[in-house]
Amino acid sequence: MPATPRMLVIGANATGMSAASHARRLRTPEELEIVVLERGDFTSYSSCGIPYWIAGDVEDVDDLVVRTPRQHRERGLDVRLRTEATALDAESRRVRLRSTVPAGGGAPREEWLGYDHLVLATGARPLRPPLPGIDAPGVHGVQTLDEGRALLRALERAESEVPSGRRRAVVIGAGYIGVEMAEALIRRGYDVTVLDQAGEPMTTLDPDMGRLVHEAMEGMGIATVTGARVASVRLGDDGRARAVETGDGTAYPADVVVLGLGVRPETTLAEEAGLPLGDEGGLLTDLAQRVRGHHDIWAGGDCVEVLDLVAGRTRHAALGTHANKHGQIIGANIGGGYATFPGVVGTAVSKVCDLEIARTGLLEAQAADLGLRYVTVTVEATSRAGYFPGAAPMRVKMTAERGTGRLLGVQIVGREGAGKRVDVAAVALTAGLTVEQMTALDLGYAPPFGPVWDPVLVAARKAARAVRAAADG
Amino acid sequence: MPATPRMLVIGANATGMSAASHARRLRTPEELEIVVLERGDFTSYSSCGIPYWIAGDVEDVDDLVVRTPRQHRERGLDVRLRTEATALDAESRRVRLRSTVPAGGGAPREEWLGYDHLVLATGARPLRPPLPGIDAPGVHGVQTLDEGRALLRALERAESEVPSGRRRAVVIGAGYIGVEMAEALIRRGYDVTVLDQAGEPMTTLDPDMGRLVHEAMEGMGIATVTGARVASVRLGDDGRARAVETGDGTAYPADVVVLGLGVRPETTLAEEAGLPLGDEGGLLTDLAQRVRGHHDIWAGGDCVEVLDLVAGRTRHAALGTHANKHGQIIGANIGGGYATFPGVVGTAVSKVCDLEIARTGLLEAQAADLGLRYVTVTVEATSRAGYFPGAAPMRVKMTAERGTGRLLGVQIVGREGAGKRVDVAAVALTAGLTVEQMTALDLGYAPPFGPVWDPVLVAARKAARAVRAAADG
Repeated sequence: MPATPRMLVIGANATGMSAASHARRLRTPEELEIVVLERGDFTSYSSCGIPYWIAGDVEDVDDLVVRTPRQHRERGLDVRLRTEATALDAESRRVRLRSTVPAGGGAPREEWLGYDHLVLATGARPLRPPLPGIDAPGVHGVQTLDEGRALLRALERAESEVPSGRRRAVVIGAGYIGVEMAEALIRRGYDVTVLDQAGEPMTTLDPDMGRLVHEAMEGMGIATVTGARVASVRLGDDGRARAVETGDGTAYPADVVVLGLGVRPETTLAEEAGLPLGDEGGLLTDLAQRVRGHHDIWAGGDCVEVLDLVAGRTRHAALGTHANKHGQIIGANIGGGYATFPGVVGTAVSKVCDLEIARTGLLEAQAADLGLRYVTVTVEATSRAGYFPGAAPMRVKMTAERGTGRLLGVQIVGREGAGKRVDVAAVALTAGLTVEQMTALDLGYAPPFGPVWDPVLVAARKAARAVRAAADG
Repeated sequence: MPATPRMLVIGANATGMSAASHARRLRTPEELEIVVLERGDFTSYSSCGIPYWIAGDVEDVDDLVVRTPRQHRERGLDVRLRTEATALDAESRRVRLRSTVPAGGGAPREEWLGYDHLVLATGARPLRPPLPGIDAPGVHGVQTLDEGRALLRALERAESEVPSGRRRAVVIGAGYIGVEMAEALIRRGYDVTVLDQAGEPMTTLDPDMGRLVHEAMEGMGIATVTGARVASVRLGDDGRARAVETGDGTAYPADVVVLGLGVRPETTLAEEAGLPLGDEGGLLTDLAQRVRGHHDIWAGGDCVEVLDLVAGRTRHAALGTHANKHGQIIGANIGGGYATFPGVVGTAVSKVCDLEIARTGLLEAQAADLGLRYVTVTVEATSRAGYFPGAAPMRVKMTAERGTGRLLGVQIVGREGAGKRVDVAAVALTAGLTVEQMTALDLGYAPPFGPVWDPVLVAARKAARAVRAAADG
């Protein structure tokens, strides 16, 4: 009888555990051994939930964990915590492990483990610019639950040491995570300053839409400093971060510093093994999520690049929703099924207090970089019929290609009911609809849900007129 | 100099006034005379807002009026109120008018008015089954603002005559308008009974989904009697409706009776003139909204049938959103532009208290009638990440064609955030996506907006599995 083939998974979060679980549903332990290595203490959790845990919306870290190591083990998965993969030998099909809690206790142990199918699900790490003090205690990423837990402890410590009303936090970077963390810290009672080097927060939006987020942040009491180049993190006598200094010499005092600069693919292992990486640092895969040129290595989630269907290029798009899809697809393929990931259109939504922020497709600058010529329109609309109680304004920006009229992108900033409207545009981008075709979309209408012309339709009509006008001109 | 051509519009609501306004934007009064006839007192209003006016959410009837007759007149439209079109002579291109408030006062006046372009925007009328008492005072439709005003007066009268806590209302029919009116009347403090002859309310849903609405209605304190065949309306000594009697002899006392049986196209004029009507009683048009076979007569809104792109047939779908689109298209075409209406996919959303109800595409029974073979799946999901405060359950039902896997329909019943999710399916239906393709849709994700697998994606995955299983079987 031949030996049981082994599926070795590195990383026990969305992609890794989805792949392992899905493969297990398709293959018995006799047919496929499944080993999962995890550097930290947690499996299958929601990174995206960390800001809400910090804010206190989510009481217990366990609420963010979809399935514990024990639950996975009960389903026939060999999950090994605090176990790091330190080297990959792709030719011999083996991985070197370093386990800091070997079974039976004792010193860290290293060993080689062979595989038949390797899944790289190593995720991403928060971007840490190489600045003085950036690695000091008190400077926190919020990518993993372990990091979230460390931040929470630092906050609890600050809250015991610093009187209420005098606690200060600095968030470096005003992207999704930076803005969500700023809200969380405001709600914990901190004075919060967000430093961002761009002209407006949320560079996943065009600057004119980012401006709306900026105004809303200021309205929430979040001091938002744009055009701010962080120069260093100043440390106190205890070696902990005490302030963030910008290039103009201003120092922003901080009891706690949070990194909100976004993340980079964690591909150290893969890079050392010579696996192919894209321009944005992520692993390159085929449509089945196999690493290009490597029949027996698969990768997905925050450590890969995905095909942007609108741009026609791969890029890094670290989102739990892609990571979960990748895991399912890898698990299906290793388990003997068939599944592929066609790509993304660049959809993202976020909420800061009651402000909803959404985008899909290309920004203006991205479209220009790709050599596209486009028209762009912006409309103001309401989330409900204008006469209906609670109707709130929203702004919708739409970009379409000149000539063809093909939809290129949509951005929405507004209050309740604004964000998920972007999904209509996401499907339209997937289907390659023109803005003229979008004007006829049969979207749901009733007064509590929107005006009789849905904001997306209003934008599409205006964009269609702009496309025609550009053709006439 | 030739005479100015005349555009004659019958009906001053969504389609009629949109057509008139849009044509006016494209053509000056010297180029095109525009006359609009309106039987009632109002122009350009939201019929869909009537339940919220009755409930008290909307204080003033003026809030439901987008543009008054005076405002339209200021924009160069000759709007004639209380003026009915009593005959259409398509051969001579003229319409007979009966004006009950002729300029200068006096008795009703009749006259013929010629046209170059005729727009039929006569709307719909509430279905009134031919039962004893159904036309008595106290039995109210809620299709027009005039009807809404009459109902409001009847309610105010009941509220002055009947002590608080003893006021009773009966709603005949548990479709969208019936259910919305039931909620409005409950909120006004009435004991409300809804009578419906079907097995479950909301026959625009499959019965298993209608069952959820039934349970929610009962939970709101709305007595919901299904399988109830209304036999007659009993009158009091004053000739006003006092009770509704069903076929089994039960009498449901009522201070006010509301018709919620849906509407029929108002096509009396068109039918007498021999214009073509479809199986569901609506005018048949081409894609430019021209009445079939009549070069100079246009029609849109609640008085026409629309092409159902999923069913491949025309049907009557009375919705303000279609009516507004039709008006724009007719106005563009008469004004010298070009626009067409490709059809609908059957999207509708509604809200009863905090219950959101949505559907698009085909019901199971409709699919079977069309000769389609299909699979159907139902999933339970939440409106936000499960750990997020306020996460509420929703049920999503999805139907796909066997073999091709093409999406056929989606129904959603849930709480906040459930209803407008149906728009994703509406776009997917328009684009002809398969449920397998839908599993890869790049929908917005963040914990306040949904679980990492959007409920629509969860349903698509299950439906895709069902399609594959049906292929294997």
